[in-house]
Amino acid sequence: MSSVPAALQDMAAPDGVCFGCGSSHPEGLQLKSYWDEDGVHVVCRHTPDPKFHGWPGLVYGGLVAMLVDCHSNWTAMAYHYRAEGREPGSLPRIDCVTGKLNLTFIKPTPMGVELTLKARVEGEVGRKSRVICEVWAGDVLTVTADSIFVRVDAEQLKAQAHGRA
Amino acid sequence: MSSVPAALQDMAAPDGVCFGCGSSHPEGLQLKSYWDEDGVHVVCRHTPDPKFHGWPGLVYGGLVAMLVDCHSNWTAMAYHYRAEGREPGSLPRIDCVTGKLNLTFIKPTPMGVELTLKARVEGEVGRKSRVICEVWAGDVLTVTADSIFVRVDAEQLKAQAHGRA
Repeated sequence: MSSVPAALQDMAAPDGVCFGCGSSHPEGLQLKSYWDEDGVHVVCRHTPDPKFHGWPGLVYGGLVAMLVDCHSNWTAMAYHYRAEGREPGSLPRIDCVTGKLNLTFIKPTPMGVELTLKARVEGEVGRKSRVICEVWAGDVLTVTADSIFVRVDAEQLKAQAHGRA
Repeated sequence: MSSVPAALQDMAAPDGVCFGCGSSHPEGLQLKSYWDEDGVHVVCRHTPDPKFHGWPGLVYGGLVAMLVDCHSNWTAMAYHYRAEGREPGSLPRIDCVTGKLNLTFIKPTPMGVELTLKARVEGEVGRKSRVICEVWAGDVLTVTADSIFVRVDAEQLKAQAHGRA
């Protein structure tokens, strides 16, 4: 009997509503991220829905940005939990948001292929953490990303956006 | 009688299928970009569908990336047409793709507010053009972007992605 580990999203934020990675978003992408066996990378596999094309036969770069955004953020949060010696899902909950999202499109990403995102934190895990993410279409590297994720108090963030803080 | 100018997308690519900006994508965002009166900026207005939240009450950063990606690209293409003294829609068609997409998230973007994207080319309009884009939620600047768009032959691009070139 093999045991399949739960995704980070399902452990740490089963009530998440994010369009990209929220486990509770009924129409969202429901991205799932997992620690790789190497203990360095966090991996997400996703086959884009055909509606998310940019050109006929090619995945829309904006959809790739969504994948990279959420998966890189979950990579940052996974590293934070590990740095505190805690399992994802333990309290208090750790939340990060995107500070900078930087993508380099190396090659067009073909539609109809399962994509693999491999990400890791580069350098220190801190209030701001740098995450490197690669997007592979089979054995072809199509996109790289080098982004910053900021640890936050999620309630405070919402109040700020609506002019209450 | 006032005449409303057509959007760049409807003039130059009425058959476009991109999820973000394709005029012919039945389920897409159908973003529309227009030259601003100032002759410098290209403007796009969009109110995100409530399903595109990242946190409750906040617009998903991945959706903002989609808006910036398409609108910045259309800004590059608009500058190309103008540099050649041609109207969008004249032939041969000009196509650009995203080379680098770099977003800085300054403040959370509130849901339920019309967003205004203002973009312009910085420097030369060439094979690679740099586009600066701002995202405003009302009078609050929430995201800035500084990206690169590459002029391409769209058919060649597709062939390359599917291993035929």
